[in-house]
Amino acid sequence: MEELVKRIKEEGRVLDEGVLKVDSFVTHQVDPELMQAIGRRFAQVFADYGITKVVTIEASGIAPALYTAQALKVPMIFARKAKSLTMNEELLTASVYSFTKQITSQISISRKFLSASDRVLIIDDFLANGQAAKGLIELCQQAGAQVAGIGIVIEKAFQDGRQLLEAMDMQVVSLARIESLHDGIVTFLEEDA
Amino acid sequence: MEELVKRIKEEGRVLDEGVLKVDSFVTHQVDPELMQAIGRRFAQVFADYGITKVVTIEASGIAPALYTAQALKVPMIFARKAKSLTMNEELLTASVYSFTKQITSQISISRKFLSASDRVLIIDDFLANGQAAKGLIELCQQAGAQVAGIGIVIEKAFQDGRQLLEAMDMQVVSLARIESLHDGIVTFLEEDA
Repeated sequence: MEELVKRIKEEGRVLDEGVLKVDSFVTHQVDPELMQAIGRRFAQVFADYGITKVVTIEASGIAPALYTAQALKVPMIFARKAKSLTMNEELLTASVYSFTKQITSQISISRKFLSASDRVLIIDDFLANGQAAKGLIELCQQAGAQVAGIGIVIEKAFQDGRQLLEAMDMQVVSLARIESLHDGIVTFLEEDA
Repeated sequence: MEELVKRIKEEGRVLDEGVLKVDSFVTHQVDPELMQAIGRRFAQVFADYGITKVVTIEASGIAPALYTAQALKVPMIFARKAKSLTMNEELLTASVYSFTKQITSQISISRKFLSASDRVLIIDDFLANGQAAKGLIELCQQAGAQVAGIGIVIEKAFQDGRQLLEAMDMQVVSLARIESLHDGIVTFLEEDA
């Protein structure tokens, strides 16, 4: 997605070989117009997939997921990063391992918002090791819902998230695919859409 | 706001005298169309305030703040609930006390995204004791930015958040004002907008 790649080139900051910071328009300060364009692009790509729900994870997945859901005319659900799971409500839960922080945390969605009749589009801002997306897939599977596709704003293609998800028979569509961050320079692969 | 009040009546669940759950359209599953209508309403109310940034706090403030920012044609910033503050970046930080959880947590915004030339509109999904909004005001003040107003989706008017914020000379505009949750019934005050 040309507009997104342009913004990454202009405003993205390479902190080291593994970390790209886009906090001026995606992960902390957010550009609503760009997010809407991103949402519309995902909605175009997945228009014929019979999507009934868009699912993401708090917090920086919310903006692209929200506009995608709006363009597809379906609700958006954001999984909570639960610290302690209160048992007063039926929750779908999954464990997500963070390679960066080297900790496992729980994510959850209320069971009542996903059912076997749902066809889910998962949206997230970043794909690195694929652990967050894998956790979201597990939540959907627990509900018997079908994951129809995964839309990623920025894919770190030099990490193995896509391989992991494709090995689970998932279709992954990324709007910007980063080949490397060597020497402080962002190199792109051809994006999916 | 009629449409919002209608949805609260239809889908809001009173858990006890103090807790209203709106997780089917605001705080967990999100209705993008309603959020856009909410954002447009806030933008109407604050159209002439010279707003340069919309500020909220993750996670459920993001949706209404995003659409408000889009309608005002300005960026949206969401404060992070920081667990441990890394000092590798200059952060504005404030403490927020939660009466529900009885803990104090830190919230933060990168200093580079707010400056003395900013006029900020704070948006949040709920107003109860006003502690989160107070924390956001402090972040803005640390940057020398002026808080031009506070937009709240649902105000629990039986708690003292509004009094606290008005005592700080803040203008508070709520789209739904709840007078009480007695006996499992939601009673509304006249809303602001």
